[in-house]
Amino acid sequence: MSKYKLIVAYDGTHYEGWQKQPRKKSIEDYVIRACNKIFGNDVEVIGASRTDSGVHALGQVVTIETLKPIRTNKIPLALNAHLPRDIIVQSAELVSNDFHARYHALAKTYVYRVYNQTTPLPQMNGTTWHRMKKIDLDAMKQAAAYLIGKHDFMAYSSNGGAARTTIRTIYQLDIIEHGPLIEIFITGNGFLYNMVRIIVGTLIDVGFNKIKPEEIHHILESKDRLRSGDKAPAHGLTLHSIHYESLTQYPTSYIYD
Amino acid sequence: MSKYKLIVAYDGTHYEGWQKQPRKKSIEDYVIRACNKIFGNDVEVIGASRTDSGVHALGQVVTIETLKPIRTNKIPLALNAHLPRDIIVQSAELVSNDFHARYHALAKTYVYRVYNQTTPLPQMNGTTWHRMKKIDLDAMKQAAAYLIGKHDFMAYSSNGGAARTTIRTIYQLDIIEHGPLIEIFITGNGFLYNMVRIIVGTLIDVGFNKIKPEEIHHILESKDRLRSGDKAPAHGLTLHSIHYESLTQYPTSYIYD
Repeated sequence: MSKYKLIVAYDGTHYEGWQKQPRKKSIEDYVIRACNKIFGNDVEVIGASRTDSGVHALGQVVTIETLKPIRTNKIPLALNAHLPRDIIVQSAELVSNDFHARYHALAKTYVYRVYNQTTPLPQMNGTTWHRMKKIDLDAMKQAAAYLIGKHDFMAYSSNGGAARTTIRTIYQLDIIEHGPLIEIFITGNGFLYNMVRIIVGTLIDVGFNKIKPEEIHHILESKDRLRSGDKAPAHGLTLHSIHYESLTQYPTSYIYD
Repeated sequence: MSKYKLIVAYDGTHYEGWQKQPRKKSIEDYVIRACNKIFGNDVEVIGASRTDSGVHALGQVVTIETLKPIRTNKIPLALNAHLPRDIIVQSAELVSNDFHARYHALAKTYVYRVYNQTTPLPQMNGTTWHRMKKIDLDAMKQAAAYLIGKHDFMAYSSNGGAARTTIRTIYQLDIIEHGPLIEIFITGNGFLYNMVRIIVGTLIDVGFNKIKPEEIHHILESKDRLRSGDKAPAHGLTLHSIHYESLTQYPTSYIYD
């Protein structure tokens, strides 16, 4: 039995999320089918993150376990030949059989991209949320500081009660500007359902001066989902990377690290 | 009679170029139809650059001449309401009736984007040319220097004989790296048919050490199209901006100037 760890990037626009579901077009389903072509039917595929419909990934981690190993450096090209061009295996490495993509993840980084300009730009459509009104970045940065650390994020998740615990730790939350493009990098030990999108939606409310920065903290303490903002749309969100070793620095660059 | 100068951005992926042609999906056709909705049928639309099928634009310049003026600051929103989301008017300004988008252009800047990495990245598919083998950027930069200035670009154009003259001036040719992303900015007083794409194709041949940097100069002197490289594909090319006043500095940034 051989186990490989793949880094998979995808444009989630035309998919209903990572996870395989009957009668829905999922990324996992395409990855499994490509694996079946290369490794036969007896292959187990596990994705680290169940990204939602429309969400993108630069560094989804996928393990494949197979009885028919092939040379590790051949794997990306072999699988990519059977994948659509919006799902691409970036790299493969052989890992020990007890490695688990989901359970062994120490932290994940998401990046949410906002294009803040009067008119939208076609080149930004696919991976950014267009917001027309000028965003107050200083207010947003002040607000973001309240979220860093170990907190109960009940108020910033959908259906929070379904999780065993709603306590999570955010290690870093950076807001980076490139002219009209605003990138929000958020690294944590785990995220509740819709947590990143609700945090971003609420931070944008702060950026529009609809709520005060310190309100972010009161919402956190209230544990009340009705007090946080609407969730930001899926197409602005990208799963940036998954970390299996402790880092001293978390990513703050979208593509070109 | 009122004349407006529009800056129009588009993702050219799903269009057969700027120019209106029977039974072909052109950007110009969509712009004319949107103008007809706002200004009625008596409107003249002129685009500064006839970008090819699949080529993108950040700063195409379009003039519209109409007998039914509306408030200038209302124009982008009004037209965008009737345009598909991959064609978007960025701005509008009132200009004098003798302004001509094509004849009065002093210079144009194109940017050609290359993604140089072993595996392609879905997020780069639409606007970059994926090249797998490592590009020698120093060699490419040396080669590029030979093209700057006033030259006969016959060897670097398709059907060069059709132009009145094949002499053009390249003011600047900058090769900018952002990790695996290479952006080639080229500003000139005008470009022959396929000139940017053939220059890029030939520079990439230098980057792959297929031809020597100084060969770029010999090819220029030969005026022989058979000696230059294949033209780079359309989807990597973006019309960046058109200049109507003399500049001391030309653009070297893709979106965030």
